[in-house]
Amino acid sequence: MELYSYFRSSAAYRIRIALGIKGLEHKIVPVNLTTGQQRGEDYLKNNPQGLVPALTLESGETLAQSSAILEWLEEAHPDPSLYPQNLISKAQHRALCQHIACDIHPLNNLRVLRYLSGTLKQEKTQVDDWYAHWIHQGFIAIEIALGDLETEFSLGNNPGMLEVFLIPQVYNAYRFKVDLSPFPRIVTLDSHCQKLAVFAKAHPSCQVDSPVEERP
Amino acid sequence: MELYSYFRSSAAYRIRIALGIKGLEHKIVPVNLTTGQQRGEDYLKNNPQGLVPALTLESGETLAQSSAILEWLEEAHPDPSLYPQNLISKAQHRALCQHIACDIHPLNNLRVLRYLSGTLKQEKTQVDDWYAHWIHQGFIAIEIALGDLETEFSLGNNPGMLEVFLIPQVYNAYRFKVDLSPFPRIVTLDSHCQKLAVFAKAHPSCQVDSPVEERP
Repeated sequence: MELYSYFRSSAAYRIRIALGIKGLEHKIVPVNLTTGQQRGEDYLKNNPQGLVPALTLESGETLAQSSAILEWLEEAHPDPSLYPQNLISKAQHRALCQHIACDIHPLNNLRVLRYLSGTLKQEKTQVDDWYAHWIHQGFIAIEIALGDLETEFSLGNNPGMLEVFLIPQVYNAYRFKVDLSPFPRIVTLDSHCQKLAVFAKAHPSCQVDSPVEERP
Repeated sequence: MELYSYFRSSAAYRIRIALGIKGLEHKIVPVNLTTGQQRGEDYLKNNPQGLVPALTLESGETLAQSSAILEWLEEAHPDPSLYPQNLISKAQHRALCQHIACDIHPLNNLRVLRYLSGTLKQEKTQVDDWYAHWIHQGFIAIEIALGDLETEFSLGNNPGMLEVFLIPQVYNAYRFKVDLSPFPRIVTLDSHCQKLAVFAKAHPSCQVDSPVEERP
């Protein structure tokens, strides 16, 4: 499989984590979002949505959209599973993931920040406030949900889909210096994940396209 | 089942369509987003995310996030299915849905438009341009994907998850007078769906909380 990825894209970061947990071999193909490579003719032929990530399968098809790729990974490579087995628990787990995927991440995407600073001529401080606002709004419900968690990870001894979505979002929050003090459970869960080799390998600073000065 | 819904919420509209296609009995509980009822104490107890829709099951649990509710409906009530049966086709179908759910809809949510006009003091024309921009960007890939469709609906003779996500987004586009002339396939698919009773029943203008002047 080939994963079209950008080191800082949190949607691509999700797939890197999931491929790691499931132990699936893949090649990373970097797409430079800052130079607009994702809107180039070659890339659009493969993924007309013009976004990363995309995953090209061994059979030749390309899948787009991180949530759709992750659901496919779960269906086609179910072991180890990233969801609880009970259907209602699974739906509640998935709702937290979708809360991140729909109500936090899209608002803080690079293309959106560029629209704010470019087309709408907003200053850096206003763009930063926008960024922090949507993370704060979204993390409130995640923090409440983690209050019910009595284990180290969302699936007991193992991280699940929640961590796949949450950890890249926490990385973004740190990067934009968002105050995470109201979210101690999220910070703790993140620190548990950072100790695992699959999360370290998927981290933006360890990618083939990450700048040398960001590497550990 | 009880569906917490707001007549104009396109995420709630998705669930209304899917419940209709699957023929599942439910009661609609209106939540007035314009007065902030979704952030009231009573509602937050049920759904800490403070967003509609939410679906309370007969067993008492509440599910949040339209995509998570729809996946649960598909898993718990698989007949009729809203997805193609082949896993790769299913993933590609789901990617189009997620493109709408993640890359169009969240940017045009009421709370986001209010942040633009309130906190960022943008004029109506700038908010309208923002709205149209993200619909246009997103509809390009959907229009391309529909070029491969040789049948009336995405699942042949029947609408599927794509229509569940797309038709509410087309309703939004019409409401905000977005120019849809570059998207003739989307407009045609919408008109096919509008002829079906389940889509008519789910339409915002036919809800218990829709204003009398908007009813057909």
